[in-house]
Amino acid sequence: MIAFLSDWGLSSYYVGVAKAAIKEVNRKAEIIDICHDIKPFSIKHGAYVVQRVIRDLPKDAVFLAVVDPGVGTSRKPIMMILKDGRRLVGPDNGLFTFVGEEYGIHEIRELENREYHRGSSRSFHGRDIFAPVAAYVDAGVEPEKLGSRLMNFEYLKYKKPVRDGNTIMGETAFYDHFGNLETNIPASLGKDLEEGDTLEIVKGRRSFKLTFGNTYYDVNPGNLMAHFDSAGFLEITVNKGSAQHFLSIEEGEPITLVKV
Amino acid sequence: MIAFLSDWGLSSYYVGVAKAAIKEVNRKAEIIDICHDIKPFSIKHGAYVVQRVIRDLPKDAVFLAVVDPGVGTSRKPIMMILKDGRRLVGPDNGLFTFVGEEYGIHEIRELENREYHRGSSRSFHGRDIFAPVAAYVDAGVEPEKLGSRLMNFEYLKYKKPVRDGNTIMGETAFYDHFGNLETNIPASLGKDLEEGDTLEIVKGRRSFKLTFGNTYYDVNPGNLMAHFDSAGFLEITVNKGSAQHFLSIEEGEPITLVKV
Amino acid sequence: MIAFLSDWGLSSYYVGVAKAAIKEVNRKAEIIDICHDIKPFSIKHGAYVVQRVIRDLPKDAVFLAVVDPGVGTSRKPIMMILKDGRRLVGPDNGLFTFVGEEYGIHEIRELENREYHRGSSRSFHGRDIFAPVAAYVDAGVEPEKLGSRLMNFEYLKYKKPVRDGNTIMGETAFYDHFGNLETNIPASLGKDLEEGDTLEIVKGRRSFKLTFGNTYYDVNPGNLMAHFDSAGFLEITVNKGSAQHFLSIEEGEPITLVKV
Repeated sequence: MIAFLSDWGLSSYYVGVAKAAIKEVNRKAEIIDICHDIKPFSIKHGAYVVQRVIRDLPKDAVFLAVVDPGVGTSRKPIMMILKDGRRLVGPDNGLFTFVGEEYGIHEIRELENREYHRGSSRSFHGRDIFAPVAAYVDAGVEPEKLGSRLMNFEYLKYKKPVRDGNTIMGETAFYDHFGNLETNIPASLGKDLEEGDTLEIVKGRRSFKLTFGNTYYDVNPGNLMAHFDSAGFLEITVNKGSAQHFLSIEEGEPITLVKV
Repeated sequence: MIAFLSDWGLSSYYVGVAKAAIKEVNRKAEIIDICHDIKPFSIKHGAYVVQRVIRDLPKDAVFLAVVDPGVGTSRKPIMMILKDGRRLVGPDNGLFTFVGEEYGIHEIRELENREYHRGSSRSFHGRDIFAPVAAYVDAGVEPEKLGSRLMNFEYLKYKKPVRDGNTIMGETAFYDHFGNLETNIPASLGKDLEEGDTLEIVKGRRSFKLTFGNTYYDVNPGNLMAHFDSAGFLEITVNKGSAQHFLSIEEGEPITLVKV
Repeated sequence: MIAFLSDWGLSSYYVGVAKAAIKEVNRKAEIIDICHDIKPFSIKHGAYVVQRVIRDLPKDAVFLAVVDPGVGTSRKPIMMILKDGRRLVGPDNGLFTFVGEEYGIHEIRELENREYHRGSSRSFHGRDIFAPVAAYVDAGVEPEKLGSRLMNFEYLKYKKPVRDGNTIMGETAFYDHFGNLETNIPASLGKDLEEGDTLEIVKGRRSFKLTFGNTYYDVNPGNLMAHFDSAGFLEITVNKGSAQHFLSIEEGEPITLVKV
């Protein structure tokens, strides 16, 4: 099974032809679309989604993840094997920063062996390298056949989540389809938070009060709520509304919450 | 086969991980995406689409339908079996109102048995309850194993379609991708309508004249046409244009047409 | 394997029920979505995408392509077999103009035989004719069973790409998801172009200078670049930006580039 994520959108045909390239290698490959609406060129958005999704995939799934603004440059195409055995295929540009840190890295291979590529365009490695390699990996090709080991890889810079007394700091990861604000703050930093607690976000001269809850219904429609979401991170929502319309916080900005 | 509908959008990863949850239960499950762009939180929009789609699904398909603004509250997760044997899995919040009324209900089960759930988040029953249960049902698990029978379920309020002489009344269901206005008026209420007949919509002080036709080409480009669409309901279209831009009628509003 | 393209969008349920119609014919049919965001009613946009995609499909794939503003009129439903054996199913309205010209046509069949249709709506041949016929063709039904041979078919008018000294003329095909401008100018018209060459687009009183390159990184962020893309056509891009926002050229407009 191949889980497929990209920033190519579904309005172009790129996702379709990459799937065709997978099927050329192995007609029986099973492909699950995770998301193709990563913000164009936003490696960080992609990296955060990869981290949230991987825990929900079957362990033997191959995660084909392509957000690749540097396609055709010297950035390397890689396969990464995590310590728990999960496998990812994509560009070495920081896209695997958060999974690498959370799960630990067992091995990285540079995808040098052209036997497992489909051709050699310089602008569409998704179709020509990543998709066919993911298909071969899914079909059982051993990592050592793909290329030599890499001993280091690219990390993104980001604001690590920390807790200092009543203050919790982190980074806004992205907004989802409903306008919910996703942060990189894990549940482990808020174990003492209880339903009904009040949190405050300070943003320049303005501040917003949030109720900590468990379900969207814990606050009245239109009100701000914070909770640990289904992926284990602090999420800020507006019941039946959009936090994105409410808050003036950009994706990637630091965020500070104070328990009051 | 599992037909999958939601209001989660394809820009988030939620659809992808729900599919992964299905595949965890049964790697061979076949999934067909019906639509994931139901208007966020619009149970009624979802209910109308479920009704239009179900007649086109193979009879043994399991319809996984999740529009669930009340996730985490006391609303029940259910499987519904219609009198013709078709099966639906989703929240008991009115989403199955129209199929229940049209096809009749054979049996409803509350999804109590956690053996068939995946975990227990409070905010993502799509991944944790509905998707895995749909996979088990598709794989042949018997309804009585899922939970106890429910003797009633939630209905939505809506304007039932009626005919009174030359006046046909109903409700606007939704606009489709092309801006066509879909109503809940079934073909049985317009058996006497013939190609070339004129219909009039009265909307406040304004009224619009429509030609009743069979194909979009029966009127000139830019003109309004009404016909019974491929799902058997009255649809209002503009040839090579968008009825949504033309008419100032909201989704869910009552609509009255007069044969003139 | 069936590759599926349409202008129906994914926000409606039409793609889903067409897939259900395929599965009614052959539960094991494999379907790959190519793109459902062809501009509504734009046969030419569809035709250009069909041309770009077909080279990347397995040779035995059936290409189900439906952009069909004339559904229900006298336009014919067809299956086309190209000289290299590739098969396409869709409306005879010009959608196969470019593949027909590029690959040559072996045979066209009018889809007359209702045995292979699903029903007879007048507004949704996608579900009722094209999808089931594609499924039967994919399952091995012989062309002669579908209907009689057609000796001619519909062509679109368009600006054929030509080269005259340093001037290259053609047509803008469409913008992709990243705002890259795709033209119909094939690599064969620019064999002498070298990395670092300057091209000029003249557009009314304004002109734009472009660098000819190989990868998006060959110019600084925000600068215009031209290259032959992964499908073999001249593409105009802005590094980390959108050519669509930069240039005031519409889809379908002629385009002239001068090597300076």
